[in-house]
Amino acid sequence: MSTEEALVKLKTAPFVELGYAKADTHRRIRQGSTEVVYGAGKTPEQSLGIVKALAEDGGCVLVTRCPKETADLLSENLGCVEYDRVSGICTVGPRPVPSPNSLVCVVTAGTSDIPVAEEAARTAEALGSRVVRIYDAGVSGIHRILSKTDTLARARAVVAVAGMEGALPSVVGGLVDVPVVAVPTSVGYGASFGGITALLSMMNSCSSGVSVVNIDNGFGAGYIASMIDRRSAPL
Amino acid sequence: MSTEEALVKLKTAPFVELGYAKADTHRRIRQGSTEVVYGAGKTPEQSLGIVKALAEDGGCVLVTRCPKETADLLSENLGCVEYDRVSGICTVGPRPVPSPNSLVCVVTAGTSDIPVAEEAARTAEALGSRVVRIYDAGVSGIHRILSKTDTLARARAVVAVAGMEGALPSVVGGLVDVPVVAVPTSVGYGASFGGITALLSMMNSCSSGVSVVNIDNGFGAGYIASMIDRRSAPL
Amino acid sequence: MSTEEALVKLKTAPFVELGYAKADTHRRIRQGSTEVVYGAGKTPEQSLGIVKALAEDGGCVLVTRCPKETADLLSENLGCVEYDRVSGICTVGPRPVPSPNSLVCVVTAGTSDIPVAEEAARTAEALGSRVVRIYDAGVSGIHRILSKTDTLARARAVVAVAGMEGALPSVVGGLVDVPVVAVPTSVGYGASFGGITALLSMMNSCSSGVSVVNIDNGFGAGYIASMIDRRSAPL
Amino acid sequence: MSTEEALVKLKTAPFVELGYAKADTHRRIRQGSTEVVYGAGKTPEQSLGIVKALAEDGGCVLVTRCPKETADLLSENLGCVEYDRVSGICTVGPRPVPSPNSLVCVVTAGTSDIPVAEEAARTAEALGSRVVRIYDAGVSGIHRILSKTDTLARARAVVAVAGMEGALPSVVGGLVDVPVVAVPTSVGYGASFGGITALLSMMNSCSSGVSVVNIDNGFGAGYIASMIDRRSAPL
Amino acid sequence: MSTEEALVKLKTAPFVELGYAKADTHRRIRQGSTEVVYGAGKTPEQSLGIVKALAEDGGCVLVTRCPKETADLLSENLGCVEYDRVSGICTVGPRPVPSPNSLVCVVTAGTSDIPVAEEAARTAEALGSRVVRIYDAGVSGIHRILSKTDTLARARAVVAVAGMEGALPSVVGGLVDVPVVAVPTSVGYGASFGGITALLSMMNSCSSGVSVVNIDNGFGAGYIASMIDRRSAPL
Amino acid sequence: MSTEEALVKLKTAPFVELGYAKADTHRRIRQGSTEVVYGAGKTPEQSLGIVKALAEDGGCVLVTRCPKETADLLSENLGCVEYDRVSGICTVGPRPVPSPNSLVCVVTAGTSDIPVAEEAARTAEALGSRVVRIYDAGVSGIHRILSKTDTLARARAVVAVAGMEGALPSVVGGLVDVPVVAVPTSVGYGASFGGITALLSMMNSCSSGVSVVNIDNGFGAGYIASMIDRRSAPL
Amino acid sequence: MSTEEALVKLKTAPFVELGYAKADTHRRIRQGSTEVVYGAGKTPEQSLGIVKALAEDGGCVLVTRCPKETADLLSENLGCVEYDRVSGICTVGPRPVPSPNSLVCVVTAGTSDIPVAEEAARTAEALGSRVVRIYDAGVSGIHRILSKTDTLARARAVVAVAGMEGALPSVVGGLVDVPVVAVPTSVGYGASFGGITALLSMMNSCSSGVSVVNIDNGFGAGYIASMIDRRSAPL
Amino acid sequence: MSTEEALVKLKTAPFVELGYAKADTHRRIRQGSTEVVYGAGKTPEQSLGIVKALAEDGGCVLVTRCPKETADLLSENLGCVEYDRVSGICTVGPRPVPSPNSLVCVVTAGTSDIPVAEEAARTAEALGSRVVRIYDAGVSGIHRILSKTDTLARARAVVAVAGMEGALPSVVGGLVDVPVVAVPTSVGYGASFGGITALLSMMNSCSSGVSVVNIDNGFGAGYIASMIDRRSAPL
Repeated sequence: MSTEEALVKLKTAPFVELGYAKADTHRRIRQGSTEVVYGAGKTPEQSLGIVKALAEDGGCVLVTRCPKETADLLSENLGCVEYDRVSGICTVGPRPVPSPNSLVCVVTAGTSDIPVAEEAARTAEALGSRVVRIYDAGVSGIHRILSKTDTLARARAVVAVAGMEGALPSVVGGLVDVPVVAVPTSVGYGASFGGITALLSMMNSCSSGVSVVNIDNGFGAGYIASMIDRRSAPL
Repeated sequence: MSTEEALVKLKTAPFVELGYAKADTHRRIRQGSTEVVYGAGKTPEQSLGIVKALAEDGGCVLVTRCPKETADLLSENLGCVEYDRVSGICTVGPRPVPSPNSLVCVVTAGTSDIPVAEEAARTAEALGSRVVRIYDAGVSGIHRILSKTDTLARARAVVAVAGMEGALPSVVGGLVDVPVVAVPTSVGYGASFGGITALLSMMNSCSSGVSVVNIDNGFGAGYIASMIDRRSAPL
Repeated sequence: MSTEEALVKLKTAPFVELGYAKADTHRRIRQGSTEVVYGAGKTPEQSLGIVKALAEDGGCVLVTRCPKETADLLSENLGCVEYDRVSGICTVGPRPVPSPNSLVCVVTAGTSDIPVAEEAARTAEALGSRVVRIYDAGVSGIHRILSKTDTLARARAVVAVAGMEGALPSVVGGLVDVPVVAVPTSVGYGASFGGITALLSMMNSCSSGVSVVNIDNGFGAGYIASMIDRRSAPL
Repeated sequence: MSTEEALVKLKTAPFVELGYAKADTHRRIRQGSTEVVYGAGKTPEQSLGIVKALAEDGGCVLVTRCPKETADLLSENLGCVEYDRVSGICTVGPRPVPSPNSLVCVVTAGTSDIPVAEEAARTAEALGSRVVRIYDAGVSGIHRILSKTDTLARARAVVAVAGMEGALPSVVGGLVDVPVVAVPTSVGYGASFGGITALLSMMNSCSSGVSVVNIDNGFGAGYIASMIDRRSAPL
Repeated sequence: MSTEEALVKLKTAPFVELGYAKADTHRRIRQGSTEVVYGAGKTPEQSLGIVKALAEDGGCVLVTRCPKETADLLSENLGCVEYDRVSGICTVGPRPVPSPNSLVCVVTAGTSDIPVAEEAARTAEALGSRVVRIYDAGVSGIHRILSKTDTLARARAVVAVAGMEGALPSVVGGLVDVPVVAVPTSVGYGASFGGITALLSMMNSCSSGVSVVNIDNGFGAGYIASMIDRRSAPL
Repeated sequence: MSTEEALVKLKTAPFVELGYAKADTHRRIRQGSTEVVYGAGKTPEQSLGIVKALAEDGGCVLVTRCPKETADLLSENLGCVEYDRVSGICTVGPRPVPSPNSLVCVVTAGTSDIPVAEEAARTAEALGSRVVRIYDAGVSGIHRILSKTDTLARARAVVAVAGMEGALPSVVGGLVDVPVVAVPTSVGYGASFGGITALLSMMNSCSSGVSVVNIDNGFGAGYIASMIDRRSAPL
Repeated sequence: MSTEEALVKLKTAPFVELGYAKADTHRRIRQGSTEVVYGAGKTPEQSLGIVKALAEDGGCVLVTRCPKETADLLSENLGCVEYDRVSGICTVGPRPVPSPNSLVCVVTAGTSDIPVAEEAARTAEALGSRVVRIYDAGVSGIHRILSKTDTLARARAVVAVAGMEGALPSVVGGLVDVPVVAVPTSVGYGASFGGITALLSMMNSCSSGVSVVNIDNGFGAGYIASMIDRRSAPL
Repeated sequence: MSTEEALVKLKTAPFVELGYAKADTHRRIRQGSTEVVYGAGKTPEQSLGIVKALAEDGGCVLVTRCPKETADLLSENLGCVEYDRVSGICTVGPRPVPSPNSLVCVVTAGTSDIPVAEEAARTAEALGSRVVRIYDAGVSGIHRILSKTDTLARARAVVAVAGMEGALPSVVGGLVDVPVVAVPTSVGYGASFGGITALLSMMNSCSSGVSVVNIDNGFGAGYIASMIDRRSAPL
């Protein structure tokens, strides 16, 4: 594709102007994936309007940080709606089927990190990946993550979720040779600063292969891990 | 592989005890990639000792943040040493040959970001990827990055390097559908805080698919991008 | 005007002493614009007292961050009151009519930035500018803002409102050749720190012509943009 | 101009590809002003290459943060070079002549703020504005700025430069009814944090009409003030 | 007094051990002033117990940050209780009578700073000073504070209370030649950070004679100002 | 014990997989102490499940930050439950009996620090130490802590709890010759930043022998102090 | 004095316009004290020019943060110059003689705090106070400051200088009943953050009567302490 | 010992007044350990003066952060001086002999952490402990620390030194059941912020038994670890 063609493509990129939003019906063509709507900070009616515009071609739409009342409104107006309250993940329309070798591992340091981990796991599943969960495997009891090295070894991408000191991704990064997407969580108190300490810790990971997304951004991590997983060649 | 086997493997993981370092000769087996030594904060003699221990099996060893005198000492004592002063990247031993479809794009916002970008590019090359560089394509002249959309569309992973407000990865992330590894640089002054502003900006990217590594960590970004690139299936 | 005269003017500058406030009846003469009262942190009675003192000469008074009960009290006691709940903007008295060439563009990155944008837009309107709104045009779908370049090109001042990574003003600043007043919003989560990340990002904009006001300070941006707009010469 | 035309214009926007930089020869058409090169973080040879590409049509090129050796190299290779060491401002080519009513006031709180103020003043002059300087007029001796109210009253835009507590723009903002562009400087010690305190203080100015640029960013302030000045209608 | 005597005095310093508190009955002798109890973070019963222990010798006890229910309980159990809800200041017992020349000025930048200012004013009054209040005299309308220079000139200590950019103490410090105790308030939004910006600004005041107490610490400022006032020699 | 044995021990380290948690039944063997469950961020049912798994061998289980409803559920389902609402400490099963020479001193600066101090004290008691409490002995009335030097001299470890400026541990550290574990509390306002100031102050203590735990982490301090106390030799 | 008179006084306030500075010859009348010039950030020639303008009436001029070469230039051109290299304090002209009861105590926590303490002490002396120095009396050996309680008891104002955890002012504040001006110093390492920790600690002092000036601002503290000292009534 | 006796002891606590320092000859009696002098920020002559005063009774004096020239001056004037340049530790006089069961383990994450670790190790040795060093055992190659579990199991206190993400203490804390004193180092770059990230990470350790000292404070950690070690009962 030439530059001219690329620009023409951009120029004619369709979006539905809703006044309060420009629903980007173009993204499925451009990025080849399930459409995503960020549910927080929008009224249920606004979210419904956007989802409707995006769901017109029959594909899957993922609503993240979806409030209960938004999920209810979607459910009343649209078919095929699934909603998980712990993670706030809502899907509208049919989910893709994972390929045979697909495998994303989602690991957490503690029990309190599970809601964020579920956001990652369900996002990856909505995008077409198979997900295995390893929860409460923090580094203060190192034998817990060591007992899962065989599962980790088969993953094509890993999401590592941790609050407090955020040490888990560094240990996991040393055990696998695939990208580790680290998610700091706002779990902790005092000098955890709502996840900043974990975020900084992960930025400074001594393990190569670790990159970081925003605090509590399970969606972002699941999105990237699934992207890597789905594009990986069979071993 | 069972848990028992995994643990046995870990237990017998060989490293060469050098007193000041435990050279991890095991990593090539465990992680299947070129060995890496972080050159800063080590005396030239310490780096030489570690590189020697790692290079024994004839593979490639990558020394990052390599001071000039360390590169000189390596060059005097070992064969096949290449050193780039701008990025501080030094390789010892034969580099892997990239596969036909390999493609990592390294883009920068400005001219001053080039040293970090070169660290990323040369790391990815040392690990076996083909790299295309797009430099000085910051968002204040948006037509510059738009003119490269065709090249970006063929990449299997993108490294986006920017200082100041760090907006480039968000724009790039919206143009491609592969993972974008964002590298904040310490370029800027005043409220750029040595890269913190760019780092925070990138953490909050509105584009899905963007993850972040530490400030000026070109190596980390090149490592992850190459990992993704080499494992990608041909389209 | 000589220094002596300037000082005499200052010395005799009238204000109405209300005990809890010194209502600055002088400002309309001194600054030639609609009077402004900051409604937050004042009791409805205090705001009413100040507005009354300022509205005596029949001009327009603008109350920002106006709580519902303050608006109600003003409405009960004074004529010609308009109140917008989304932005908290309340005007008392007749609004000025915009000049034919007047044009302020208010753009937002997302849907959640609209309340702050409305504060800017309605402030500029209350001061006598014509306003065009371009909402949900963030940089992750760059074609959305590109499709509005013709409108932007006619603006005499632009207000760019964004949370999260705050990249929009840099892109807009590169598309226009008039001042861009950037408003960071507290929209986002995690490392957006209630708008600090967007603020810092905007401070470091690589585009010339961008200056910044406080987080969520739609009023300040609208005020400046209108000031520039109304004083601009016809092209 | 239609969207199609706007995009075509962007698509064909010319820049000279120099490898390390994309010199934006398009900006003069697009933004109608003197071209600007940021001199810091570039080698003298890189800056020369870019200036050459930009100066080809005979217009004025402004190099900011220009190191002495870069200025020397430009002087040796190009005609009509002026260099001010205090502010690091270098101009290549003929400066525009200011219009009769043009007036930008540049005020500083102290003597140490002068280098940044000169960057602002010389930038505005290079862009075609007339500039009046009012230096060392900080608020601890309030009579100093009060004695200049007559000059301030004639300005079409004001640049207010201050370090330490950064209070000057708030006082100036209350004395004039034109936009005040505030520049925090890194002057001070201890809890001035290299200008952060002044920056935050200015962000929170109680005077309407004040917007802020980055610490020590005299260029940015001069650029915006001149933009406003040159577009202002005669009173 | 010799060191030995000083230590003996300390050794025998009486306090009433209440288990949850050691009520310091010694302070009145040691520091010669009204006793003070910090009411926040204590149950009403705890505060009552402490006040009782301190009030035994018939002097005045000042309770700061006093919750309504604590004031009620004190009122039910003790005589001579005065309570101001705005500032949370409660006094138990007879207040000292100010000397003829006593004068503390308490000035605020805005209307929202009044609760903190009242804490300062009432503290100084409870300790025996005469207080004059100058409210809503912020620097954006500089003529407001200038109109009070005659009153300020008679003060023996000044308390300057301001939120947002905290510029008032610098201006006041230049107008008087007595100590100015600056109190940052948590008034403001966005980058005011709950008073941190004002605090930093005040720390960096360009006026000599300004010192700073904690955010919203009206008590501390009133205490110091009164201490200075009461010890001043008649002019 | 050889490395092989150590690894075998780790490999076979038992934990009960509960899905949401991996209850570490191994820790009592490995670390020889009462088991600990962090109660916050877990549902009452999750906590009950974990406590049940840990309490199976009849030892003592300590639940920290235990919500009232969790304590109630534990009480309904398990025997020997003690719950302190102030500190949120809940113990299940029989507590160890302290040795004759055991002594941990827990000191606080103020009354508001007591809840954190009680967390420390009750943790140390649950682990088998004898505890003496010295409350409200802050440094502004230095005679209060000086009057307790004889008690402090007998302690085998000290926990020093303080908010605000956090000066107490430095003074205590100079009075004793045993380790002082400092606990910053979130007590205070304004620039105390929820305990950060106290934390930083304690990190910089000029007294040797002072180490620090997280803000409000009474549990951590009590745990360490008791560990030191129980292992100390009789004098 | 009426408002009119006050404003006339301000209006006619004389200053010598030097271009780079407005030397405030008015301040001695307005504030009744020795003139002060901040020597850092000015060229020696600029400082000389300002000192000359201020010294014309034969009074004392104090130059703070005075570089060696500035002191030399002053010495060559003016009579009666005294310069202390440790503190950077330079006085030009005759110093005032202290009154009999004058007493300012300057205390430091450690030996490294002495340069800042000397700045305070010499400033107070230049302004006409008698100063007693108590150095190296930090709280980790509490008996050192306790042994000086008799001297402290006679002081009319205290300057307390400390780096690291900054605990000294709180202890001193509890021992005296006069204002304590706390000066944080940049002494320390790691989490002392160049004095920020000490500053924050002092802001949160649990002792009433403590106010704070900027990091390393010995001048400011000496100025305030002397102001209080000189205005105090004899006991 | 009664309160009276404690105070008398404090009162008569001897120190040698050197003007610039109060050498605390009392500490050996009070705290029973080797005397310590902080060498940084003192002139060599000041350090010599203090060491002489402290060494008079023939005990051991430890000088930390000792500059080369101070060590040289001590060596010239005093006998039995040992100096280690890497850690800056200098001892004067005979070192105590460790008891048979004494064992402090000092572990580091990387090679660059060794200088701080040596400060800890040599401090503990100077105070009378036996020390085993385990260097370069960071968590990215977890088998390295796991291979040392047998040595760790015999330690009576552990010092864990790490920069970057500071994860090592959490892993070590889970492997041992003795106190772990964590030392953040300023090793790293970018978002490691000179050790702040490691410090925060360690404050939030998920392992019980971990407390933290200041960045690079090897001395503090060695001091505490040795204190615990020497007071431990034989197992």
